[in-house]
Amino acid sequence: MSKIRVLQWGLGAMGGGMARLMLEKEGLEIVAAVDARPDFVGKDLGAVLEVGRTLGVTVTSDADSVLEKDKVDLVLLATTSWTKEQMPDLRKILNAGINCISIAEELAAPEAQNPDLAQELDDLAKRNGVSLLGTGVNPGFVLDLLVVALSGGCHSVERIEASRVNDLSPYGPTVMKTQGVGTTPEAFKKGVAEGSIVGHVGFPESIRMISDALGLGVDRIEETREPIISRTHRETRHVKVAPGMVAGCAHIGIGYRGAREVVKLIHPQQVRPELENQETGDYIHIYGKPEIHMAIKPEVAGGLATVGIAVNMIPHVVAATPGVKRMIDLPAPAALMGPTAYARRV
Amino acid sequence: MSKIRVLQWGLGAMGGGMARLMLEKEGLEIVAAVDARPDFVGKDLGAVLEVGRTLGVTVTSDADSVLEKDKVDLVLLATTSWTKEQMPDLRKILNAGINCISIAEELAAPEAQNPDLAQELDDLAKRNGVSLLGTGVNPGFVLDLLVVALSGGCHSVERIEASRVNDLSPYGPTVMKTQGVGTTPEAFKKGVAEGSIVGHVGFPESIRMISDALGLGVDRIEETREPIISRTHRETRHVKVAPGMVAGCAHIGIGYRGAREVVKLIHPQQVRPELENQETGDYIHIYGKPEIHMAIKPEVAGGLATVGIAVNMIPHVVAATPGVKRMIDLPAPAALMGPTAYARRV
Repeated sequence: MSKIRVLQWGLGAMGGGMARLMLEKEGLEIVAAVDARPDFVGKDLGAVLEVGRTLGVTVTSDADSVLEKDKVDLVLLATTSWTKEQMPDLRKILNAGINCISIAEELAAPEAQNPDLAQELDDLAKRNGVSLLGTGVNPGFVLDLLVVALSGGCHSVERIEASRVNDLSPYGPTVMKTQGVGTTPEAFKKGVAEGSIVGHVGFPESIRMISDALGLGVDRIEETREPIISRTHRETRHVKVAPGMVAGCAHIGIGYRGAREVVKLIHPQQVRPELENQETGDYIHIYGKPEIHMAIKPEVAGGLATVGIAVNMIPHVVAATPGVKRMIDLPAPAALMGPTAYARRV
Repeated sequence: MSKIRVLQWGLGAMGGGMARLMLEKEGLEIVAAVDARPDFVGKDLGAVLEVGRTLGVTVTSDADSVLEKDKVDLVLLATTSWTKEQMPDLRKILNAGINCISIAEELAAPEAQNPDLAQELDDLAKRNGVSLLGTGVNPGFVLDLLVVALSGGCHSVERIEASRVNDLSPYGPTVMKTQGVGTTPEAFKKGVAEGSIVGHVGFPESIRMISDALGLGVDRIEETREPIISRTHRETRHVKVAPGMVAGCAHIGIGYRGAREVVKLIHPQQVRPELENQETGDYIHIYGKPEIHMAIKPEVAGGLATVGIAVNMIPHVVAATPGVKRMIDLPAPAALMGPTAYARRV
């Protein structure tokens, strides 16, 4: 078995995690690493990842110098959440004739927010004979791919409701800020209006994937972001929330076909949910024939699973036909534990 | 959108259900129907399905007369559980240059029990430029595809345990017999030894799919069938089970890599499980990093979902590259509710 040669682009919490995971995988080889951080550039990747050994791969800030089709099978891109911001890099990668997996949330279904850019990417990928996938735990897995797969035995589907209840406690100040944790309810509302409190990035993408896969005809998506007001004192290493203050963001996305609600996705993100007896978990309810009621408790671990899915999808993307792919277009992801996992049928 | 033209082969409980479901689907058209039952042959399919209208399709016992490549895009085959028994019909279909979905349990991963026949089928399909899929609720969905998909975010998987607890009460005398319901524990053991009590058909196929997809390297599969001895009086329309008698078959399949158990699938099938406080459901536990614990309660409805999955996979199989496919090789199934569900990306 020849190894799949991967270029890791972006060495932050997610990208660094992917690189570390790839080191454990017999079918994958990291052949290059790109990151612009001055304290990373010029260092051996082993030192940057703190794995206690030299890997013979020097981190560079100059992607052009390592985007060589003959040496790289796939780029793992972990730099931003937004399609528009990632376009210059995506153009470089696809024009170099190299496959790509990105964890930019918007790329999970790029046509949802940026149809013109999605078309450009699909054209570029096809012209260069490569494929591009956007993925992650959510969007990309829990509130879309799993929903679609669970509908697989249904004769009809009237309505779908799915929720992901998680705990933000491990996260740092940036996440606390973008979710409004620790603010007053008034500051929360102002932050949402101004765009500084964003909640979850991915509802339009997840709803688009579900609607496309099942043919639900969603023609309008509405999102609401409400403060989760704490009734108790909640505290983490990075934030203190007094009763009456905001413990998180209850973000809901609803997909309508005409006046009819067909997909409702619910994602309350908060610190210390257990203090108010909220059990974390992923829940999917499909109302139709037959009904399906699924629960995963606790929820699929967020950061860990985003790293895992991005790496685990590598063989599928390398084997895929050219073009922009979504998780609903490719075979189901699988943990890469041995040789047969890399030798997937096309 | 041009409709996908389907030949329904087999009009029993499952095949008839598929035909009725296809009548509701705007993207599918039944263009032919094959069944050898004398009371079906020569009748209009609408009369056979008892749908209260004429469909303009006459049921025939002569498959050769309707296996026309220019008129049929796919055959839905619902005739038997066994690959060997289905080979003559499969050869006909593939040699006619027509795609096929079969609900024969062994075809979910034909290489598991019949590697030579699987190779022949793959060669035939490729030579004729068509694809063949074996599917159903189990094998094909609950204890294999869902298991694989749920591992998609895992960094590592040590061991998998999954169970499907269902209720046989709706089924008739044949199922009661093949599961040993109503017999004595002694008669059950004799029936298992003689092969008249078979339990579930599908463990080698499910374990093979999981092992292949994740690369778990399973090299040995063991199955045990034990009587579920009732502690209470259980009764259905077709059977009475006194305390001490057999209420069903606890069938377990274990996949080993060397001496190590890596996949354990548990499928107790019995009548009236609620009388002994057994909740029906599908349960998947993945032990690794991270752990995943999933429950679907009640279980995905068996017969209904087999019919649903077979029909819902039609667009994927028509769009697939040539060859024998398993559920782990194709995009996730999705309920077919509108136009975009038929226009799947390849």
